[in-house]
Amino acid sequence: MARRKKIYEGKAKILYEGPEPGTLVQYFKDDATAFNAKKKDVIDGKGVLNNRLCEYFMTGLNNIGVPTHFIRRLNMREQLVRACEIVPLEVIVRNFAAGSLSERLGIEEGTQLPRPIIEYCYKDDALGDPLVTEEHIAAFGWASAQDMDDILSLALRVNDFLAGVMYGVGIKLIDFKIEIGRIYEGDFQRLVVADEISPDSCRLWDIESGRKLDKDVFRRDLGNLSDAYSEVAHRLGVLPRAQVTKPKLIN
Amino acid sequence: MARRKKIYEGKAKILYEGPEPGTLVQYFKDDATAFNAKKKDVIDGKGVLNNRLCEYFMTGLNNIGVPTHFIRRLNMREQLVRACEIVPLEVIVRNFAAGSLSERLGIEEGTQLPRPIIEYCYKDDALGDPLVTEEHIAAFGWASAQDMDDILSLALRVNDFLAGVMYGVGIKLIDFKIEIGRIYEGDFQRLVVADEISPDSCRLWDIESGRKLDKDVFRRDLGNLSDAYSEVAHRLGVLPRAQVTKPKLIN
Ligand SMILES: Nc1ncnc2c1ncn2[C@@H]1O[C@H](COP(=O)(O)OP(=O)(O)O)[C@@H](O)[C@H]1O
Ligand SMILES: Nc1ncnc2c1ncn2[C@@H]1O[C@H](COP(=O)(O)OP(=O)(O)O)[C@@H](O)[C@H]1O
Ligand SMILES: [Mg+2]
Ligand SMILES: [Mg+2]
Repeated sequence: MARRKKIYEGKAKILYEGPEPGTLVQYFKDDATAFNAKKKDVIDGKGVLNNRLCEYFMTGLNNIGVPTHFIRRLNMREQLVRACEIVPLEVIVRNFAAGSLSERLGIEEGTQLPRPIIEYCYKDDALGDPLVTEEHIAAFGWASAQDMDDILSLALRVNDFLAGVMYGVGIKLIDFKIEIGRIYEGDFQRLVVADEISPDSCRLWDIESGRKLDKDVFRRDLGNLSDAYSEVAHRLGVLPRAQVTKPKLIN
Repeated sequence: MARRKKIYEGKAKILYEGPEPGTLVQYFKDDATAFNAKKKDVIDGKGVLNNRLCEYFMTGLNNIGVPTHFIRRLNMREQLVRACEIVPLEVIVRNFAAGSLSERLGIEEGTQLPRPIIEYCYKDDALGDPLVTEEHIAAFGWASAQDMDDILSLALRVNDFLAGVMYGVGIKLIDFKIEIGRIYEGDFQRLVVADEISPDSCRLWDIESGRKLDKDVFRRDLGNLSDAYSEVAHRLGVLPRAQVTKPKLIN
């Protein structure tokens, strides 16, 4: 492959210049980080699984008319996406209490929330992605009031769809995080779901057993992360089990 | 079981007075009808399958905060629901052209629509459930403008969720029909998804093969209806395959 320009290397992915203007190649690494990168490891196969699962979710969203940056998967670790200006917010949708919500508000993990709760965190690793309110967002101009309306309805549609996908295969969607990108077309802009949707960015609990099938397996040392993600991929028919469970044995 | 008062017998279900005020028992028959009951048959096991599948979908909707009339399943053929005043409309959501839309507008079946299209039909068997516009609905007072807003957003949420459920198990949600019920609480009313959600009221195509897994199998004599519904139930983990495929052999 010809030499490509690296645009950005983050904790889980690398962005390269894409083949056409306005596109980027998103490369999924095997690196896992947690607690703002204080905990780190390399998980064989994670990048491959997340690339596939992300393709699967983004395609499903595109199908139902929820716009995303996703164009197509290129290979095992890479996907072509539209280049966006990322709104500097992590948009979190929570259906059940877990993680930081449980800690901050003293609500037991797994408690169903009265309705989905949307949270916004300012995307800044140095600050630890602090929780912000719509007041902060408006005052600092990170997104307009119209943007916030659109972001809210995008987030709720992703939630309904993803909850359905997971329900169909016996998994409870506890919460998830998305990022929103701005795409300019002439004088207009529109907002799309960008970055990734994968078990790295969701909390997924098996409905029957409560088994965690997401990055908490890594955060909390609950077992093999790759096995957990493979289970999700397998249930969704994304990858046959043999191909992903033990990537070491076949590569 | 004590003698119960039959409230209504329709084409596919019977409504009985429920055990508490404001409740009804919805009994799922094996009767299949199509083309406004011009075509009729009895399909062994259909009622059992639809009762289970309906429970599954309504529970999923209740979980994500889309209100439904469903309270709980009582037995193989019956479920307890809240008694409603039914809005006399069939609310149809279409993602791909099929059935009457294809015929009326000359669009090939399976063509993706530019966006989900909602149609309303006036629920009247004698008239053949004619298509109506929001003008008719407002003029005849079948639903208020506020009701129509709520009905639209309910229908779109059901669509996002159900599209997700189906996508998760390799099925394309072509279209579906719901009915909306009014529940009065003191001076207030709220609208809920009522009646049923089942392969009787959806069009479901296998993504890979295009195989129809819905009532079109009966309408168009495409094979065994019970097998098609069992396939849906099996994929969703609702009933183990052996229990439903050949109800005759085990009863
Ligand atoms: N379509 C896009 N256009 C531009 N940037 C994007 C797009 N999608 C995702 N990004 C950004 O690319 C980076 C992805 O790499 P990641 O490893 O997740 O980074 P980080 O460690 O900053 O979270 C993120 O900073 C994300 O905001
Ligand atoms: N919660 C409810 N309360 C009152 N009526 C209901 C409720 N749910 C469904 N119904 C009505 O019960 C009937 C169900 O039986 P069905 O066999 O589908 O009848 P039909 O032949 O009229 O379609 C429908 O007329 C439907 O509108
Ligand atoms: Mg990131
Ligand atoms: Mg009916």
